[in-house]
Amino acid sequence: MPDRSTVLAALRAQHIETPSWAYGNSGTRFKVFAQEGIPRNAYEKIDDAATVHRFTGVAPTVALHIPWDKVDDYADLAAHAGNQGIRIGAINPNVFQEDDYRLGSVCNPDPAVRRKALDHLLECVDIMDATGSRDLSLWFADGTNYPGQDSIAERQARLGEALRAVYDRLTGEQRMLVEYKLFEPAFYTMDVPDWGTSYAHCVDLGERAKVLVDTGHHAPGTNIEFIVAFLLYRAKLGGFHFNSRFYADDDLMVGAADPFQLFRIMAEIVLGGGLDKASGVAFMLDQCHNIEPKIPALIRSVLNVQEATAKALLVDANALRQAQSEGDVLGANAVLMDAFNTDVRPMLAELREDMGIDPDPIAAYRRSGHFDKIRAERADGAAAGWGA
Amino acid sequence: MPDRSTVLAALRAQHIETPSWAYGNSGTRFKVFAQEGIPRNAYEKIDDAATVHRFTGVAPTVALHIPWDKVDDYADLAAHAGNQGIRIGAINPNVFQEDDYRLGSVCNPDPAVRRKALDHLLECVDIMDATGSRDLSLWFADGTNYPGQDSIAERQARLGEALRAVYDRLTGEQRMLVEYKLFEPAFYTMDVPDWGTSYAHCVDLGERAKVLVDTGHHAPGTNIEFIVAFLLYRAKLGGFHFNSRFYADDDLMVGAADPFQLFRIMAEIVLGGGLDKASGVAFMLDQCHNIEPKIPALIRSVLNVQEATAKALLVDANALRQAQSEGDVLGANAVLMDAFNTDVRPMLAELREDMGIDPDPIAAYRRSGHFDKIRAERADGAAAGWGA
Amino acid sequence: MPDRSTVLAALRAQHIETPSWAYGNSGTRFKVFAQEGIPRNAYEKIDDAATVHRFTGVAPTVALHIPWDKVDDYADLAAHAGNQGIRIGAINPNVFQEDDYRLGSVCNPDPAVRRKALDHLLECVDIMDATGSRDLSLWFADGTNYPGQDSIAERQARLGEALRAVYDRLTGEQRMLVEYKLFEPAFYTMDVPDWGTSYAHCVDLGERAKVLVDTGHHAPGTNIEFIVAFLLYRAKLGGFHFNSRFYADDDLMVGAADPFQLFRIMAEIVLGGGLDKASGVAFMLDQCHNIEPKIPALIRSVLNVQEATAKALLVDANALRQAQSEGDVLGANAVLMDAFNTDVRPMLAELREDMGIDPDPIAAYRRSGHFDKIRAERADGAAAGWGA
Amino acid sequence: MPDRSTVLAALRAQHIETPSWAYGNSGTRFKVFAQEGIPRNAYEKIDDAATVHRFTGVAPTVALHIPWDKVDDYADLAAHAGNQGIRIGAINPNVFQEDDYRLGSVCNPDPAVRRKALDHLLECVDIMDATGSRDLSLWFADGTNYPGQDSIAERQARLGEALRAVYDRLTGEQRMLVEYKLFEPAFYTMDVPDWGTSYAHCVDLGERAKVLVDTGHHAPGTNIEFIVAFLLYRAKLGGFHFNSRFYADDDLMVGAADPFQLFRIMAEIVLGGGLDKASGVAFMLDQCHNIEPKIPALIRSVLNVQEATAKALLVDANALRQAQSEGDVLGANAVLMDAFNTDVRPMLAELREDMGIDPDPIAAYRRSGHFDKIRAERADGAAAGWGA
Repeated sequence: MPDRSTVLAALRAQHIETPSWAYGNSGTRFKVFAQEGIPRNAYEKIDDAATVHRFTGVAPTVALHIPWDKVDDYADLAAHAGNQGIRIGAINPNVFQEDDYRLGSVCNPDPAVRRKALDHLLECVDIMDATGSRDLSLWFADGTNYPGQDSIAERQARLGEALRAVYDRLTGEQRMLVEYKLFEPAFYTMDVPDWGTSYAHCVDLGERAKVLVDTGHHAPGTNIEFIVAFLLYRAKLGGFHFNSRFYADDDLMVGAADPFQLFRIMAEIVLGGGLDKASGVAFMLDQCHNIEPKIPALIRSVLNVQEATAKALLVDANALRQAQSEGDVLGANAVLMDAFNTDVRPMLAELREDMGIDPDPIAAYRRSGHFDKIRAERADGAAAGWGA
Repeated sequence: MPDRSTVLAALRAQHIETPSWAYGNSGTRFKVFAQEGIPRNAYEKIDDAATVHRFTGVAPTVALHIPWDKVDDYADLAAHAGNQGIRIGAINPNVFQEDDYRLGSVCNPDPAVRRKALDHLLECVDIMDATGSRDLSLWFADGTNYPGQDSIAERQARLGEALRAVYDRLTGEQRMLVEYKLFEPAFYTMDVPDWGTSYAHCVDLGERAKVLVDTGHHAPGTNIEFIVAFLLYRAKLGGFHFNSRFYADDDLMVGAADPFQLFRIMAEIVLGGGLDKASGVAFMLDQCHNIEPKIPALIRSVLNVQEATAKALLVDANALRQAQSEGDVLGANAVLMDAFNTDVRPMLAELREDMGIDPDPIAAYRRSGHFDKIRAERADGAAAGWGA
Repeated sequence: MPDRSTVLAALRAQHIETPSWAYGNSGTRFKVFAQEGIPRNAYEKIDDAATVHRFTGVAPTVALHIPWDKVDDYADLAAHAGNQGIRIGAINPNVFQEDDYRLGSVCNPDPAVRRKALDHLLECVDIMDATGSRDLSLWFADGTNYPGQDSIAERQARLGEALRAVYDRLTGEQRMLVEYKLFEPAFYTMDVPDWGTSYAHCVDLGERAKVLVDTGHHAPGTNIEFIVAFLLYRAKLGGFHFNSRFYADDDLMVGAADPFQLFRIMAEIVLGGGLDKASGVAFMLDQCHNIEPKIPALIRSVLNVQEATAKALLVDANALRQAQSEGDVLGANAVLMDAFNTDVRPMLAELREDMGIDPDPIAAYRRSGHFDKIRAERADGAAAGWGA
Repeated sequence: MPDRSTVLAALRAQHIETPSWAYGNSGTRFKVFAQEGIPRNAYEKIDDAATVHRFTGVAPTVALHIPWDKVDDYADLAAHAGNQGIRIGAINPNVFQEDDYRLGSVCNPDPAVRRKALDHLLECVDIMDATGSRDLSLWFADGTNYPGQDSIAERQARLGEALRAVYDRLTGEQRMLVEYKLFEPAFYTMDVPDWGTSYAHCVDLGERAKVLVDTGHHAPGTNIEFIVAFLLYRAKLGGFHFNSRFYADDDLMVGAADPFQLFRIMAEIVLGGGLDKASGVAFMLDQCHNIEPKIPALIRSVLNVQEATAKALLVDANALRQAQSEGDVLGANAVLMDAFNTDVRPMLAELREDMGIDPDPIAAYRRSGHFDKIRAERADGAAAGWGA
């Protein structure tokens, strides 16, 4: 059995990043339901991320989305984060929300549009320099809606060219994470539809380029933990965008749709050494909270990742290996299930008390009156959302 | 072999309805790309629908979406349509685009919201009275995003109650079509996720209630033509919302993703008597044109349905029945494929000339200069879109 | 919070049926891996089912599959079961494993084949009479592999005719359960592909006809608990064939692929009154154990259903209803998750001790030496399998 | 527009390989329906392949499956093929049909089993030497059924080791094709579940290792032509196993389920140069004919690939490129659809007459009396099937 103090130490060191955009209003193409107390700018989003960290203790960074989080002085924004006890995490460029990008960004048939998109990507590396961010998180909405609309191979060539230009601009500890997505917004083919495409480009580029796994971006039936284990084994796993899905890219709270899948993913991470700092694996949330309140939903999500990690750490690796090597199918599965079936909430409550935070973050947030405070403070002005 | 004049007569009588909302701007949650020449109100949408009819000859009605097409005087709107040679088709209520509907409309746990939604549905029957529309096309965005969020059974009870109230309000030839959708905007469960749910309610309600099949609203692998044949056989097929999908509710042009599937659907329609006026089956488009120009896309879509119908009419029903009864698997399949593999475009060109329209509607529209005209006329003002 | 003694009483009364065929060898089309200790006839399968009941305490019946379990004297077989403390459960006819059924059984275009299939179904009702079985469990492998191969509507008519003939033969407490399956062995369309088709036929037939939900027979993304809640609400849920799936009809151990889904299903059962005897809902396993040992796998499966039920019984229904009525999305979900996250194994161990059985059935079975015994006893003769 | 003589020349040079196992009996796990006239050994399977070539003119090779096609003297078997005007194509090892392979072959936790599997793979290279076969077609049924059953990463390491050993054994023109499959027979994870895994191993191995795309082995929604275009662009496309699917690995006749998809795949092949001999792309069928007669089904399948290729060759590449570069979404799609909608059967009939074969292969086969002949000749003895 895993040593309890080792488990607790790993959990104490855990680092889950929240995304600035999850604090703003979001929705589906049918409707964005406005909520109260929504931040009105990047500074207030950082305040909310700091709140989530204050109540959970394991969410010390916040990802930015440019230009949604555009500010005049990024060093000042980073200092604002620092003042609240958190740091700037990954920088997420946006090359999908201008009319120019109707037919794609870096894969667009028009070289002028490609140049514009590339310039934005490079600008985001500048922002990394200014904020001390390590990871450039690249997701391309590029693709086509109709067969024949554009050349798949030529779009790959254009993609490769842009990725190379950005890669060559990275310095120091900076890395590039290449995300993939099966579909949406493009409906015939995306230009990076699966991990294989992302992997091939990352291998071309070099060591600083890694694959980003968004748990909501796969075809039905895809075994995500296989991908995770494969990439980790080949040192090409850059990190996660966590969320959950019943159907497509539903962007529900991580762990809400299939907590067992989340556990299996975290078990591969633990068994493959992905919790070690040296692995560089980034654990980031990327979610929408269309109908539920934002901050409690993000606290819940952080806890869900934490609980799955705790269970994964409880897997008896020796017993597992033993059963596997003996070909004991039921025995090996039972080792895994034993950890999953354990109620880790008491252990985590203890950990939190030890860390000086409330053992029940959700109840503590509710009691804190924080929501009433931001609801009042933010009653005026335009709430942030996708595109703002 | 089917008699050529019978085939041509059936094609000449065909009636494909276009939706007013497809003429406005639309997009994904990521971005709505604005286009030029977009109608600015319900009257101009009707103008565009009339244009599509003028070039195709088989699109004599247009569906309305309320309140997107709200006007002061619906009789006047109907007269405007009549002046252009078309009529008002189905009325589509909208009970998903107000903040009150965050947790549903007629299935909402709050009775006041349910009442509000029901009132809107009843208002739409008034509009049917005013416009002479036959069909009330009901789609509910209702559902839940998280397990436990609400009671599935109680939501069914609320749904049944609302449907009953609307059904009892129908008069004359009026019908109610109940659409289903697997997911989106709700991501845990929709309240009418599949044809079975819709069918069960329609059976409860009575003869005026029929199932509406949207070709994009099914789980992967669903055999849509089975559903069509089943409902037609049981006189419960109300009609179609045509579009096409590679992944989810992609809303691409009908026939663009899987023309063979469209043909199979139309073959079941032809074999099951669904082209007969008496069957009452409504053939409606429900599409988005996110990146392609609207009017040409709608002309293309109408032609796609027409071509699929033409091929379906060419199926040699006697030979098919013969092969089926002999258990000749390859032979029966070959009869179907023979019709599908036939190039029906020359026959349709001939039909059009006979109907006094250009044999090549796409080229004719392009030559007409119509787009330049509306681009200029509609340069000012707010373009219509979802929600406007 | 639910009362502990009520929960325990419900668990003590639980009844999970195991299928005779799961004790025999099974596999995929690629290979059936032979195992040791496999029963050689229906009597030995019943012995194995009795063993599973002896170790779990909640599996008091066994389903038969005819002709795989054909015997000369069914009353004697039932007596054999009775002697071991179990009873005969559902009777499962087989109308798919003779060359005559190449193009279907009751839906076959050839009336002679349909008659043969119907005769077998009626023979199975005779076996129900002889064994005291309550449920006739109908699954049809019928369907087509190629578009056009046969008429969908005519096959429905043939199906309806056969179902009616069987239904009219039922007497006393006998019921008919109509199962559905998305695909396999037919690959273009099954004749009962979804719950809607099954439901429509059951409504036609009357009160004794109910829908059987096999948890592995749905399209990707289908919300099974919606179907369960819907059918239970309408008194048309006959029962389950439990197993689990990652991809298609994988037939893995129930609860192995998605324990949260199993919990959600059982939560709908508990909330909808489906555990009450009066509801008549049958809880049956239908699984393959291709690579793992049979009896331990069936014990594990029974425990998985039991654990999911225990968690479902722990759902605080009052708190859930309260949160739902207030529109508290996160709160309602939290009530459900709180029950799911509870480790119910200690409570179940206690229950077992109270019932006079070992608190750890898996370990107890392993210790018992039972496997060595049957391995030796059954070393000679032909092991049972699908088709034997 | 493409030059007609160029199109005809390409079609005349086309080479579609049929698989020996498709001539034997096959089925699902539920039932193998026996047919008449089935070959009883490898020599008779080659006779059937020669028959298909005789009637189609474009199927000059036949793939072998070892040990199903095991003979004492492979040079003699190759000579038998040569005498009939065909050649031996790919060699397909079988490492899934012995009891030793219950937990995998080259990925098995037991080194002795891995060694046994590897020896069989190497034996197959010997058979390549003896028959003059160019391609070793590797498909591994390896995988796990339950989470935790075995280490994903260690299985990858074992896989890599075996592939390397086989790769190093290849000589001359010999190549290794690595196939992938989403699921079945393993139901939790396959060891090569997707093209990305196959690609990564092939890149490791070197130029002789290429990815084999089986059109039935993908998750729902996967855009297969994207994979084809991507691999072709990177010179890593080894070839195809053609068949078609509505649901899973249905193994229906190629082009039967989605002829438009087959056309799109062939269009990417044509546009990417994959029809050129130099590309080395192999076009092979891999199908089951569970309910339809084998030889006519294979003729039909060869014709389906041929028709799709003819349509793909008719795509006006210049017009397509022009529309793509102008961002004309509808125009580019229309170029593709124009080719797809063309009825190529007259052109192919002409081609066949020019090649000295009957313009209608299906009718010609039926008229030939060949089936009656083999039915009589092969009435005795054991029909070949999977495993024989």
